[in-house]
Amino acid sequence: MGMPEPTHPIRYLNPEPRYADAAIHGGVVYLAGQVPGQTDQGIEGQTREVLATIDRLLAEAGSDKTRLLMVQIFLADITDIHGMNAVWDQWVAPGHAPPRATVQAALADSRWKIEVVVTAALY
Amino acid sequence: MGMPEPTHPIRYLNPEPRYADAAIHGGVVYLAGQVPGQTDQGIEGQTREVLATIDRLLAEAGSDKTRLLMVQIFLADITDIHGMNAVWDQWVAPGHAPPRATVQAALADSRWKIEVVVTAALY
Amino acid sequence: MGMPEPTHPIRYLNPEPRYADAAIHGGVVYLAGQVPGQTDQGIEGQTREVLATIDRLLAEAGSDKTRLLMVQIFLADITDIHGMNAVWDQWVAPGHAPPRATVQAALADSRWKIEVVVTAALY
Repeated sequence: MGMPEPTHPIRYLNPEPRYADAAIHGGVVYLAGQVPGQTDQGIEGQTREVLATIDRLLAEAGSDKTRLLMVQIFLADITDIHGMNAVWDQWVAPGHAPPRATVQAALADSRWKIEVVVTAALY
Repeated sequence: MGMPEPTHPIRYLNPEPRYADAAIHGGVVYLAGQVPGQTDQGIEGQTREVLATIDRLLAEAGSDKTRLLMVQIFLADITDIHGMNAVWDQWVAPGHAPPRATVQAALADSRWKIEVVVTAALY
Repeated sequence: MGMPEPTHPIRYLNPEPRYADAAIHGGVVYLAGQVPGQTDQGIEGQTREVLATIDRLLAEAGSDKTRLLMVQIFLADITDIHGMNAVWDQWVAPGHAPPRATVQAALADSRWKIEVVVTAALY
């Protein structure tokens, strides 16, 4: 009655009881929503920290910011999009800017101004 | 002028005129946003019902909760995250907790407290 | 120290410095969040325009609305779901209605009533 052996394994990055940092399957990396650790920063500082975390996790997974497939950005205050974009524009690898969607949503910690969900391709 | 034969077919689960419960393609299952049917329940009850629906749909698709790739959770009230997590933690298969993102969003029926969007891998 | 050659290339559609219209990888098309250009329209007109843009971008990518894998819809006012659905129901290819999730979120331009994020399969 058991399930058959999976055809393609899934690798979870830094699995914890509640969630993992990423799942890797079929050449695609799905990152968990990334939020800032330094909650006393403004939108620029929080965005910079979140994007640095994403760089680190993509490297752990075997990818990088030249391999982004889709980026969903949630801002606690949508008017922060300008400050976010200023940092984003410095971060994006020229010629590799991905599709993106940015909307407003209240986040799990009221001090978080940004949460970023990344899907990327492996190298 | 027609399109060529698709290289990989798509299977839609329980297709209706407006939407399907899932699309299956390339070894990946994309579930529609799942919401509770019992709208008189609290966050724990609604979460339990939604996760049970997800279990059932994943089984229909040929997957299960050990094969989750990404889970996006929308809560009508972000402070319900604690009640949602209590049920989630009981539900997750140990060693298979997926990447996750949880944000607040008003949902299509004001009685719904939670909507969950799952991407999973086939067996 | 460089990364190896990628196993599967990514094609970006209409890449700009900040974002691309789509990324194409592994037989899947990831579209950027699509918003209306005509901001003086009601929800029906804005939905119609956004879905027409999606048709155009899917064609550019080598797909179409019979190959949708998942559609995430953000409405600035969730009560617009009825007007959105009226246009959606006319647009969807019979037998190919995809999984979908619709939630409320404030969008980057306060005149936008709808933003739609599409994942589709190539032909």
